[in-house]
Amino acid sequence: MKMFFHYNWIIREEWYRWCEEISEEELLKERTGGLGSILETLFHIADVEWSWIRLLEGKEDFQEGFDNYKSLEKVRQLDARFRPEVENFVANWDDSMEHRVLTTIGRDGTVDTDEWGEVMRHVIAHEIHHIGQLSVWAREVGREPVSANLVGRGLPELNKNK
Amino acid sequence: MKMFFHYNWIIREEWYRWCEEISEEELLKERTGGLGSILETLFHIADVEWSWIRLLEGKEDFQEGFDNYKSLEKVRQLDARFRPEVENFVANWDDSMEHRVLTTIGRDGTVDTDEWGEVMRHVIAHEIHHIGQLSVWAREVGREPVSANLVGRGLPELNKNK
Repeated sequence: MKMFFHYNWIIREEWYRWCEEISEEELLKERTGGLGSILETLFHIADVEWSWIRLLEGKEDFQEGFDNYKSLEKVRQLDARFRPEVENFVANWDDSMEHRVLTTIGRDGTVDTDEWGEVMRHVIAHEIHHIGQLSVWAREVGREPVSANLVGRGLPELNKNK
Repeated sequence: MKMFFHYNWIIREEWYRWCEEISEEELLKERTGGLGSILETLFHIADVEWSWIRLLEGKEDFQEGFDNYKSLEKVRQLDARFRPEVENFVANWDDSMEHRVLTTIGRDGTVDTDEWGEVMRHVIAHEIHHIGQLSVWAREVGREPVSANLVGRGLPELNKNK
């Protein structure tokens, strides 16, 4: 579980750096599929990751929309604000938490139950999926996307130290 | 680890069904980013998953290109041919295999070492990433993509039975 989160954070940081080379107009440009823009996708990834962790912690989640975060700097600041809490939760994750149950009640009153292990994997897959969308849009911008490779990044070593 | 593989297989099957509604021309159409076409992406996902598992098993991998598999039916047949071996490997996965080392020698003679746990997560992330690309192309075709949600699919229950 932890290695996937570390992978996602490394990839996300590389995408932020990739964005530094791109005009704000391109980053905010409306595109086909997903969230519709590169920057809103990165905002959404950070938002969704933090919101699920907050749900697992039994705390309130983030209710703001993208409108107040329409620059690379603002998205990075928001991500940096969220990150310590997420990192702390992930660092303290152990297998005994796998089958704990999260109950959520939707706006229409439907009750969903998910195991914590399911939620953690959902958060992981959620980011990787959206990063895949960014990789297509990167080519539309005429740039090489960030490599999505998980091997070759020294992740087992990083994991040992955390 | 197992839950992610089950997730990927369920999502992949849903994409095959999604493809049944789409013309072969659209499935093979050259697109921006990734492998360049919907069908070649699905071929690549099945190929790469099987090839890495074969490497872990110390067996020869698959050396054919996409040229002989340019129909939905052929890609599904290839996937079905590969699947039992992959399923068997995944079913027998346990944590003691996590730190075993796979050594591979590239065409240029470079030697790479990866832990088995790293390779398994690479295979998982590889598929999710490419499925993200399909979701953008689906919108280009004017269709709703397959949901990438991992929660709500009853995966913990499925995992207990395997």
